[in-house]
Amino acid sequence: MEIEADAGEAMHALARELFPICRSLTGEGTRATLRRIRDHLPGLEISEVPSGTSVFDWTIPDEWNIRSARLVDAAGRVVADFGVSNLHVVGYSEPVDRELTLDELQPHLYSLPDQPDAIPYVTSYYRRHWGFCLQHRVRESLKPGKYRAVIDATLAPGHLSYAELVVPGAEKEEIFVSTYVCHPSMANNELSGPMVATWLAKWVRAAPRRYTYRFVFIPETIGSITYLSRHLAHLRARVVAGFNVSCVGDERAYSFLPSRRGNTLADRTLRHVLGHTDANYVRYSYLDRGSDERQYCAPGVDLPLCVFSRSKYGAYPEYHTSLDDLRFVTAAGLAGSLTALVRCLVCLEANRTYRSTVLCEPQLGKRGLYPTVSMKNNPHHPVHMTNLLAYADGSHDLLAIAEITGIPAWDLLSAAQKLEAHALLTRVPATA
Amino acid sequence: MEIEADAGEAMHALARELFPICRSLTGEGTRATLRRIRDHLPGLEISEVPSGTSVFDWTIPDEWNIRSARLVDAAGRVVADFGVSNLHVVGYSEPVDRELTLDELQPHLYSLPDQPDAIPYVTSYYRRHWGFCLQHRVRESLKPGKYRAVIDATLAPGHLSYAELVVPGAEKEEIFVSTYVCHPSMANNELSGPMVATWLAKWVRAAPRRYTYRFVFIPETIGSITYLSRHLAHLRARVVAGFNVSCVGDERAYSFLPSRRGNTLADRTLRHVLGHTDANYVRYSYLDRGSDERQYCAPGVDLPLCVFSRSKYGAYPEYHTSLDDLRFVTAAGLAGSLTALVRCLVCLEANRTYRSTVLCEPQLGKRGLYPTVSMKNNPHHPVHMTNLLAYADGSHDLLAIAEITGIPAWDLLSAAQKLEAHALLTRVPATA
Amino acid sequence: MEIEADAGEAMHALARELFPICRSLTGEGTRATLRRIRDHLPGLEISEVPSGTSVFDWTIPDEWNIRSARLVDAAGRVVADFGVSNLHVVGYSEPVDRELTLDELQPHLYSLPDQPDAIPYVTSYYRRHWGFCLQHRVRESLKPGKYRAVIDATLAPGHLSYAELVVPGAEKEEIFVSTYVCHPSMANNELSGPMVATWLAKWVRAAPRRYTYRFVFIPETIGSITYLSRHLAHLRARVVAGFNVSCVGDERAYSFLPSRRGNTLADRTLRHVLGHTDANYVRYSYLDRGSDERQYCAPGVDLPLCVFSRSKYGAYPEYHTSLDDLRFVTAAGLAGSLTALVRCLVCLEANRTYRSTVLCEPQLGKRGLYPTVSMKNNPHHPVHMTNLLAYADGSHDLLAIAEITGIPAWDLLSAAQKLEAHALLTRVPATA
Repeated sequence: MEIEADAGEAMHALARELFPICRSLTGEGTRATLRRIRDHLPGLEISEVPSGTSVFDWTIPDEWNIRSARLVDAAGRVVADFGVSNLHVVGYSEPVDRELTLDELQPHLYSLPDQPDAIPYVTSYYRRHWGFCLQHRVRESLKPGKYRAVIDATLAPGHLSYAELVVPGAEKEEIFVSTYVCHPSMANNELSGPMVATWLAKWVRAAPRRYTYRFVFIPETIGSITYLSRHLAHLRARVVAGFNVSCVGDERAYSFLPSRRGNTLADRTLRHVLGHTDANYVRYSYLDRGSDERQYCAPGVDLPLCVFSRSKYGAYPEYHTSLDDLRFVTAAGLAGSLTALVRCLVCLEANRTYRSTVLCEPQLGKRGLYPTVSMKNNPHHPVHMTNLLAYADGSHDLLAIAEITGIPAWDLLSAAQKLEAHALLTRVPATA
Repeated sequence: MEIEADAGEAMHALARELFPICRSLTGEGTRATLRRIRDHLPGLEISEVPSGTSVFDWTIPDEWNIRSARLVDAAGRVVADFGVSNLHVVGYSEPVDRELTLDELQPHLYSLPDQPDAIPYVTSYYRRHWGFCLQHRVRESLKPGKYRAVIDATLAPGHLSYAELVVPGAEKEEIFVSTYVCHPSMANNELSGPMVATWLAKWVRAAPRRYTYRFVFIPETIGSITYLSRHLAHLRARVVAGFNVSCVGDERAYSFLPSRRGNTLADRTLRHVLGHTDANYVRYSYLDRGSDERQYCAPGVDLPLCVFSRSKYGAYPEYHTSLDDLRFVTAAGLAGSLTALVRCLVCLEANRTYRSTVLCEPQLGKRGLYPTVSMKNNPHHPVHMTNLLAYADGSHDLLAIAEITGIPAWDLLSAAQKLEAHALLTRVPATA
Repeated sequence: MEIEADAGEAMHALARELFPICRSLTGEGTRATLRRIRDHLPGLEISEVPSGTSVFDWTIPDEWNIRSARLVDAAGRVVADFGVSNLHVVGYSEPVDRELTLDELQPHLYSLPDQPDAIPYVTSYYRRHWGFCLQHRVRESLKPGKYRAVIDATLAPGHLSYAELVVPGAEKEEIFVSTYVCHPSMANNELSGPMVATWLAKWVRAAPRRYTYRFVFIPETIGSITYLSRHLAHLRARVVAGFNVSCVGDERAYSFLPSRRGNTLADRTLRHVLGHTDANYVRYSYLDRGSDERQYCAPGVDLPLCVFSRSKYGAYPEYHTSLDDLRFVTAAGLAGSLTALVRCLVCLEANRTYRSTVLCEPQLGKRGLYPTVSMKNNPHHPVHMTNLLAYADGSHDLLAIAEITGIPAWDLLSAAQKLEAHALLTRVPATA
């Protein structure tokens, strides 16, 4: 389960390249981002869904594209400039070119009194509106007088873009990985997710595999709803485990947020991996949900999917502000997340249900698998093998035995392989 | 779920009026009490069951009526007088008019060495006996000599009296409320129960209702056995939740004692209400049972019924003594209990199982139910609605969602009503 | 459930007599031990299984018999002498008579650096080998030079010996007790097990009984595998509870090691007994297994059997060394274990499932089972009876009620007997 030594650096480098692009639910920024990811994942299929299309209870909105925007005071001083940070403009702002007094302007300004040096990230996707986001310290300094607000944007029928990559495996059952690509210049939420998902897909392609893998890069909420509206029956029939990959680039913590049902194969796998990765990983409840798991785990959808994060959306101060940048997200942070997800896939691939082929314990000694001299405190006792055999009753899968014994599933795997090679374990269909 | 502002005072006033009456398993005192309650609950039906009637393993005893009783010493000093406190006479004492020495008298005297100023409450329902109860301090002061014991009572075939009120609702399923009326001059155990049950029945009659309600006012043990012997099949078929209401008038604590099975709808409801009423409410075990739940939850009866108390029978020092009076029981204590039980009924009435009518999350914003501008820490996020929708999968009832989310069911109810009004939730039959 | 007052002393006396015998997987020492146990348990049936017989994945090894063995240095000083302690020779050593240098000798020497005064217990059952075990302090003092190693032993086709005693009861269902007889001069592991099992069998024979009892005295591992290979179908059909009795002679602690499934009748019984015997008994996991439970609880075997120990194998410093002697094992230690196991059998015999014969509570007073005068804090309240009746619903067995109520099952038993005598409880088939 090796990952390339420079994967962290490579992910960070691509993130730096993509950081300045203004992504949104729709538009050229998102499309350009998907194309650049395709350079790393040949075969990635980009889909376009027309504005106005009904997707369950929702409708695909008009496409938004922005070229420039500036807020200037009467003296010609620039208060906010899209060219400096695309966060300065409320996402999905309609075009405007107006002079206003400060009082008239205020309902169009957004700032964070508690984080006076941060530009907040604000959107108004589904109601026509325009606005500027700025540091609270700057807003406080504004003097009465005239201001000119110019947003050169278009909001017109177009398409919502998303991408998917299916990597076929020996079996039809699928592992599903979803991440989102609708955020402008922010790093943890949300360039980190697409970076880690891209490198995870590279790893999958390079490894022998049992499962089929499906990676999707979508705009949040409307994108997952759109994707589900087109693939629900297939996903419900095929997906055995899924991960929503979001906010995976910082170094602070690992986080687990369960599926709504709480104990699907995905939940069991990620809990197992994080338990052996960081004993203090943060355990969230489904009540803390906030990303696409809201759709994937909705009643009637109910995919076996949980959320993998480091500092989870909403739970770190830089969240949804200009402070969420590529100093907060690091190569080491990204690499740690990639390693954890690779371990999840290794566990899933390894997770078979076995039955012992003999009654009572097999005689391991005659097969060279057990010390022939018996003496107390023998350090060569093959505890992984004997534990595997003890629970190989056709009702515990490898993950269950790993949890019972406290042994990482990836360590149990090599014991299982040895026992299979000696025909002491046989695979049986899972009972759950 | 408003209750009248003066309900506490009104309950306390009626309790003061009824306090002096000498109630027992049978007799005119109990009958008079039931008639006075009927003044508040027109339609209350009073039943009379003849002495000698078999009720399961028991037999209705003779009716006991007492007019006066005195214990006087040789000097004519009154040691105990029924006219001063009806607790002075052992309940169901047979008539007596005898002179005795102090030694002969002792087996007929009852007192509490640990509570020397309290008159204990003692009964001998099922074996012929007579006796006087007195303060231990008084008993200790008694001098050798002759005493005269006179009890002017009758113990003769008659009837056991109980009352019931059925308030029909839209559905045949019933909520069952039981309380008892067999205690002489004591306030928490047990005038408080009938008072709160009476005002709860008034509240039920005044409110729109889904369920049918059945209130019974009975003597303890033999009364509930009698009632069950006549109505068991009906109650088992219809009752969805029941409460034994006892010791509900003091201000010290709220108490919960579960049904024998421990997780019926009644248990879930009362636990939920008390959890949001008083985080430190006392959680008893079914091993602590002692009142009519012993019959209602007996094997083969198994009604879904739990016990609501404040300071529970047996668990407060004033219990079954003359100290259990109307200073210990207060208008505020009674009103608090009424409020908690009203909340239980509100929860039960509101407790529906819903299913979301759309796949994925509905777009609340287009219905004016969600903020249109998205920004971190938005206080207007309609978390009650989104949580309801997230768990509206046809397998969680409202109480279950309230427990999962930590939101009082009565608060979730208004969110449910809004979502139903927008046709986003539909009611389904409960799965459990 | 009386046990004889001198049982502890009698067990210790027999242990002292058997201690010097050199037992092993096979051979005359084990056979002699079984014959001596038969003196105490007339009817004990000793079986002989020929070397070379296949038992599941294993083969019965050659029989090992040893007459003498000495390791002598060049000066004629005796380094290790089988006549002094049979632990000095590696179990199953092949015959040898050789001169070697110290360097050549080293791979045939075994000692414990951490316990320099203890002779370790070492075996090589399944690979031809010879060796001497000695105190590490002695080993360290050995000087370069020639040594003469003589082991006068035979390793040749013969038999594996084991013994069983079936004590028929009123029912065909069986209680199974297994212990092992393959250890040379060590006391806790493992003369204590056969001693306690022998006296337990005496107790069973002397008591009226419902169940059939099966006691087996076998060599560890290969013995239990052999026994299972011959009796598996019978045992799976008949055994309702079993105990592996091992390391039961010291006074340090009581230990419980569950079956693989963890909640069989045997587990429930032993947990209950130990909970009322020693609140601090040691609770092991099945991961700590190491004796014949490895076979009895293996997948496909799955007997409802758990392990009863005091200081469990592997968990005390004297384990598998010459320090495990008859000072560490005491008459009091053995007697305590016998008492605990007798209590287990009493619980199992008593463990019926009852149903109340009346609806609601029966009137205990009219049967003289309840105080007729009711007064607070009455110490004569028959709480064992009322609790039994409250849970006698046909789904709780006596052990379950004992656990719920915190009352030892043997105390509940007399209440059950009284209620059965009054026809208030009836026995029903267990539901689980």
